[in-house]
Amino acid sequence: MRKIRMGMVGGGQGAFIGGVHRMAAALDGQIELVCGAFSSDGERSKASGEELYLPAERVYTSYEEMFEKEAKLPEGEKMDFVAIVTPNHVHYPVASAALKAGFHVMSDKPATFTLKEAEDLAEEVKKSGLLYGLTHNYTGYPMVKEAKYMVASGAIGAVRKVVAEYPQGWLATHVEASGQKQAAWRTDPKRSGVSGCMGDIGTHAENLLEFVTGLKVTEVYADLTTFVEGRLLEDDGNVLIHLENGAKGVLYASQISVGEENGPQLRVYGEKGSLQWDQQEPNKLTVKWLDKPREVLTPGGNYGYYCDRTASSTRLPAGHPEGYLEAFANLYVTFAEQIRAHLAGEALPEHTLDLPNIDDGIRGMKFIETVVKSSAQKAWLPL
Amino acid sequence: MRKIRMGMVGGGQGAFIGGVHRMAAALDGQIELVCGAFSSDGERSKASGEELYLPAERVYTSYEEMFEKEAKLPEGEKMDFVAIVTPNHVHYPVASAALKAGFHVMSDKPATFTLKEAEDLAEEVKKSGLLYGLTHNYTGYPMVKEAKYMVASGAIGAVRKVVAEYPQGWLATHVEASGQKQAAWRTDPKRSGVSGCMGDIGTHAENLLEFVTGLKVTEVYADLTTFVEGRLLEDDGNVLIHLENGAKGVLYASQISVGEENGPQLRVYGEKGSLQWDQQEPNKLTVKWLDKPREVLTPGGNYGYYCDRTASSTRLPAGHPEGYLEAFANLYVTFAEQIRAHLAGEALPEHTLDLPNIDDGIRGMKFIETVVKSSAQKAWLPL
Amino acid sequence: MRKIRMGMVGGGQGAFIGGVHRMAAALDGQIELVCGAFSSDGERSKASGEELYLPAERVYTSYEEMFEKEAKLPEGEKMDFVAIVTPNHVHYPVASAALKAGFHVMSDKPATFTLKEAEDLAEEVKKSGLLYGLTHNYTGYPMVKEAKYMVASGAIGAVRKVVAEYPQGWLATHVEASGQKQAAWRTDPKRSGVSGCMGDIGTHAENLLEFVTGLKVTEVYADLTTFVEGRLLEDDGNVLIHLENGAKGVLYASQISVGEENGPQLRVYGEKGSLQWDQQEPNKLTVKWLDKPREVLTPGGNYGYYCDRTASSTRLPAGHPEGYLEAFANLYVTFAEQIRAHLAGEALPEHTLDLPNIDDGIRGMKFIETVVKSSAQKAWLPL
Amino acid sequence: MRKIRMGMVGGGQGAFIGGVHRMAAALDGQIELVCGAFSSDGERSKASGEELYLPAERVYTSYEEMFEKEAKLPEGEKMDFVAIVTPNHVHYPVASAALKAGFHVMSDKPATFTLKEAEDLAEEVKKSGLLYGLTHNYTGYPMVKEAKYMVASGAIGAVRKVVAEYPQGWLATHVEASGQKQAAWRTDPKRSGVSGCMGDIGTHAENLLEFVTGLKVTEVYADLTTFVEGRLLEDDGNVLIHLENGAKGVLYASQISVGEENGPQLRVYGEKGSLQWDQQEPNKLTVKWLDKPREVLTPGGNYGYYCDRTASSTRLPAGHPEGYLEAFANLYVTFAEQIRAHLAGEALPEHTLDLPNIDDGIRGMKFIETVVKSSAQKAWLPL
Repeated sequence: MRKIRMGMVGGGQGAFIGGVHRMAAALDGQIELVCGAFSSDGERSKASGEELYLPAERVYTSYEEMFEKEAKLPEGEKMDFVAIVTPNHVHYPVASAALKAGFHVMSDKPATFTLKEAEDLAEEVKKSGLLYGLTHNYTGYPMVKEAKYMVASGAIGAVRKVVAEYPQGWLATHVEASGQKQAAWRTDPKRSGVSGCMGDIGTHAENLLEFVTGLKVTEVYADLTTFVEGRLLEDDGNVLIHLENGAKGVLYASQISVGEENGPQLRVYGEKGSLQWDQQEPNKLTVKWLDKPREVLTPGGNYGYYCDRTASSTRLPAGHPEGYLEAFANLYVTFAEQIRAHLAGEALPEHTLDLPNIDDGIRGMKFIETVVKSSAQKAWLPL
Repeated sequence: MRKIRMGMVGGGQGAFIGGVHRMAAALDGQIELVCGAFSSDGERSKASGEELYLPAERVYTSYEEMFEKEAKLPEGEKMDFVAIVTPNHVHYPVASAALKAGFHVMSDKPATFTLKEAEDLAEEVKKSGLLYGLTHNYTGYPMVKEAKYMVASGAIGAVRKVVAEYPQGWLATHVEASGQKQAAWRTDPKRSGVSGCMGDIGTHAENLLEFVTGLKVTEVYADLTTFVEGRLLEDDGNVLIHLENGAKGVLYASQISVGEENGPQLRVYGEKGSLQWDQQEPNKLTVKWLDKPREVLTPGGNYGYYCDRTASSTRLPAGHPEGYLEAFANLYVTFAEQIRAHLAGEALPEHTLDLPNIDDGIRGMKFIETVVKSSAQKAWLPL
Repeated sequence: MRKIRMGMVGGGQGAFIGGVHRMAAALDGQIELVCGAFSSDGERSKASGEELYLPAERVYTSYEEMFEKEAKLPEGEKMDFVAIVTPNHVHYPVASAALKAGFHVMSDKPATFTLKEAEDLAEEVKKSGLLYGLTHNYTGYPMVKEAKYMVASGAIGAVRKVVAEYPQGWLATHVEASGQKQAAWRTDPKRSGVSGCMGDIGTHAENLLEFVTGLKVTEVYADLTTFVEGRLLEDDGNVLIHLENGAKGVLYASQISVGEENGPQLRVYGEKGSLQWDQQEPNKLTVKWLDKPREVLTPGGNYGYYCDRTASSTRLPAGHPEGYLEAFANLYVTFAEQIRAHLAGEALPEHTLDLPNIDDGIRGMKFIETVVKSSAQKAWLPL
Repeated sequence: MRKIRMGMVGGGQGAFIGGVHRMAAALDGQIELVCGAFSSDGERSKASGEELYLPAERVYTSYEEMFEKEAKLPEGEKMDFVAIVTPNHVHYPVASAALKAGFHVMSDKPATFTLKEAEDLAEEVKKSGLLYGLTHNYTGYPMVKEAKYMVASGAIGAVRKVVAEYPQGWLATHVEASGQKQAAWRTDPKRSGVSGCMGDIGTHAENLLEFVTGLKVTEVYADLTTFVEGRLLEDDGNVLIHLENGAKGVLYASQISVGEENGPQLRVYGEKGSLQWDQQEPNKLTVKWLDKPREVLTPGGNYGYYCDRTASSTRLPAGHPEGYLEAFANLYVTFAEQIRAHLAGEALPEHTLDLPNIDDGIRGMKFIETVVKSSAQKAWLPL
């Protein structure tokens, strides 16, 4: 037995999400970072690698070089998979190249720059026989898994209404003009895609909602707005939604909601009960019932009423809060489990199948492109 | 000096909102109930009056009788105003008759059964020179007044986005089939009007939003649904909204949101700050800022940073929670102040002008009729 | 049938608690204020009565005059009971005189100035055959009644530990030096008694704790402190407590806890479950269980699991918050029920017996005198 | 530059805190686990090491063997420090042996089994010139550091009152009888020491309180109780405390508070403001002021009003919750910084000095022994 070996593309000095992926991968001691092409700027890549205590020969100046050289290393040494943490426009080329070179892929979201790319990538994943994970990290929270389980088990009855919100406030002013790196690429159509807010965080809301309810969004009516003058992509969007079973809902995302830090929140109303989860207090799942007092579920209890998956996604006893990184780490440790099964030539364990994959990537890209069109055309559009 | 004298139409045994109006009117010792026509059923009206310790001769069997007889009583005895607490379809005829008989009117919302009636009533109020108040009671909360003041004073900058919610769960099943009185008339188009949920509680959300922001809703796109089989009016509605200054928003109301008790909640996002208020924790106003820590305002403090109106709407020191009835009473005590000014032949005091009136009634009826049409036509419609 | 008639001693202009009693008495339409001696200053008493719309002849300049003259009025006119809302040192003489004159008494707490007075008063109440209520108002909250019921019914098992807190911050500076009326008498040993903080609010904590658990405090070890220089009575106290069944606990009260508004909070831990209630969010009772998820109970639901007394103490449907005044009003409406029974020559209805009475008054005075002694002697003392 | 190398004593299969230390050490990529003696049972130690992907030759069957063999490894390979995660009675011998063998020590708390041992250990640390860290992990939370900073900077004025609570409910029944491993040693005087609850969690409360206020507890009066029949150590304790500057307070810890998960909470009241922090919502620090609205501080904002140490203890942007493991990891990454400075022959960086050390260990042991004595003697005792 050995640790699974990870390479990384992107995530050099000054980046945000690269560090998140590294901490998430490291937490459970199942994965080790062995190499990286951390920046398209060779010097920055080298410096980043050194900070991460990587040997100089495993720090590359491009992903092409990395895949080529890693592929030639002996089995006991070369990386097993690549983590892609670049801006959106680079997701597809890197993922595609990694698969061609025989490496599994763990990609930040959205999967690609366009829906077309996502569909192509799905084909390539399928053809390759390799594994592809997508870090829709909010699915990694134990209480989100519990919510999914409660819906699936029928505990709250048929879903009627959903409300998915994702407010942030960090783009309430024209920060990209100041050169802030995170803001700059996220508001740049050339690097972010056709959408700003909906692509960056609206997709998280969409994914969370479909993950928990197990229902597809079938139609959307969107109203997107760019509030900050000079910004090139929308920074706020309100969307009416219809789900496949006749349920209705509201989904909104915003980056100009002053004072909101990072607020994904989901409410699911069924015929017998309802669920409420707020990422900023992630260790609570509030369950409201038709005919009995509301309950507040927390992870780590010994009560025996949680699904196994909630339990296996929790590291600590009740009352020891786990957060964003732990949820993110749940995706990585699940991906490591999948890779171990793959290495052993076994089928992926049932419980690991909740890891978002390229199909979720396609859903996300469809969502992005459809809400942009719906808002422009002022029309309900199918998803 | 004397107490202001109130008569009541509706609110007999088994009713809900009539009792609320009576407690609200009684709380501050400014108003006394002197007569009533509590039910169209004469026996029930008599029994109700007796329970309220009214002398038998001031308990009437119809509002027509009440207005006629009260009008003939001497000045020192007859009622000053009538409180209308009947189902919606009776609001207009009673209000109209009261004005004709020379009595001020305090009416439950919505103002009338149709927009046309509301417009007629506005004319009649104007012509009569009498006072008309509408119990959009959520405007009575001190922290709602503080929110209105903060927006008006520019503290949070220009409003960009609003989210107004009003979820309830009490109609999640077909309770009207069981004869539950409150449910029966609210789901009956003949007594409630063209709308169920939006008329009953959606209008509160709309009123609260316009009250706090001081901005008109100019356009709506609605998606209304009847979830409970056999129900005759919609029990859920999601609405995209545009405000006059270019702000955007979401407004939704629901009566099938299982486990939600009575959840009006408003969020207003400005360029510099944002406000959040939840009726179920009414003594907190959360203010989030662009560049400093969030604050939680509460009524009754001695800090000197509240507007006078917030202070004058608060009866108790900080930490002594006031609730729904106190907010409701703030409308009544304001109406009593208006009547005193009227009796004295003076202009209405500036601070009493925040009492919702027939103009708000028209807004509400427009809102109801427009969201119903918008949903049917699948179109943005002006308000 | 008629309203119960209340006279008032104290509560003139500038007072706080007098207005609270009047609003509480008025809310439910069962009691009318008919007379008063609102101040020992005759002019202020007259002015106060006028503001309250009382006829001049029922506004008295002393309680002695009031009792004498009211006693001579005809049955259909004279007051039924007196509400005592003066500073502490006057409670006993007024109550004693009222009983002698044949009037029931509703008194603000603490019952008297000394324990000796309370014991004398208990004798006088007993001898008089009249009714005596004490406004330990926190017992009036529906969720406090539910908590009491849950303990009594055995739902949470034998009580092991209690934590009763009552922090306030309003006396964190030397405000009495500025002449603030509320602060002035509460920090004056001649008007407040041997204790400041513990007498004013510590007794509420003690009463709440005994009310909910149904258990007597048997021993205390207190550590009282005067933090503000120049203050004559303690403004903070921490107390270890033992209960009659072997349970242990902590009780503290403070008036120098900066930023705390009015924070009575109670936690009761039993062998099978525990209860938590916070006066500043009074419509929630959190119940935590040994072996199932925590629940949040709220008043007004239709669930059928509340005790009847909780239900009968609630005026509004779920989600319509009731607060401090409604809880206070529950004491008054209960007292009115007792008086009606007394007028009818019937036994007091079982459910009205939760109104605090002179026995609670004795407990409170014992508590005050014992914690003061315990702190001075540094010793556990029996209560 | 290289990672710091950690060996571990204790923490084999079935243990709880060992895994916590490993995750905390791994999170930031600064430390690698290189060896361990995970259990006094050789087979279990081997199996544990294998699960952790350690080479067989670095998995030892006793700490003596580990120190002896590691000491002989070349500089570039041998461990830098040992993490001690055994039951309490083994802390001292392992720490002492590690220091003798030239290894730095990171120890779980309490530092030792007796106060005498802690004092001896302090001598040994001093003599050795090596580093010693103690995992009072709650000091690692960013908002705890911010609280410490706010007190130290005078923002809330002189401290007057503190309330430190640590309720848990997991020992509310006689679980040690069932052989539950965590419960078994914590309730066994031979492995836990003279105290159960106060040693296990009361010390955390004491440490947190002294850490944040910067004030020493000078006197305690304790009331300890064993509620569960058959248990050998106390499972609940209430303590009155005096601080060196004249402040007063309450500290309690409990393991029988049914339904409480893991609830350290601290309130500090100063002359101008007060602070409230609750470990179960660790990313909020509520600040209440004498003369302005209360504020809620959160980590990760860009506001510029936090102390540098709060910022450097935060990995993620605002709204991305960090939890228990991240706080724990802050201790490890600080210890790694200290070791790097030691390796470089430099003084320990100022900001790393907030890592609890052997002096805190002595405080903790004094606290434990003093509260046990105080409760037995029913006397205030100096600390």
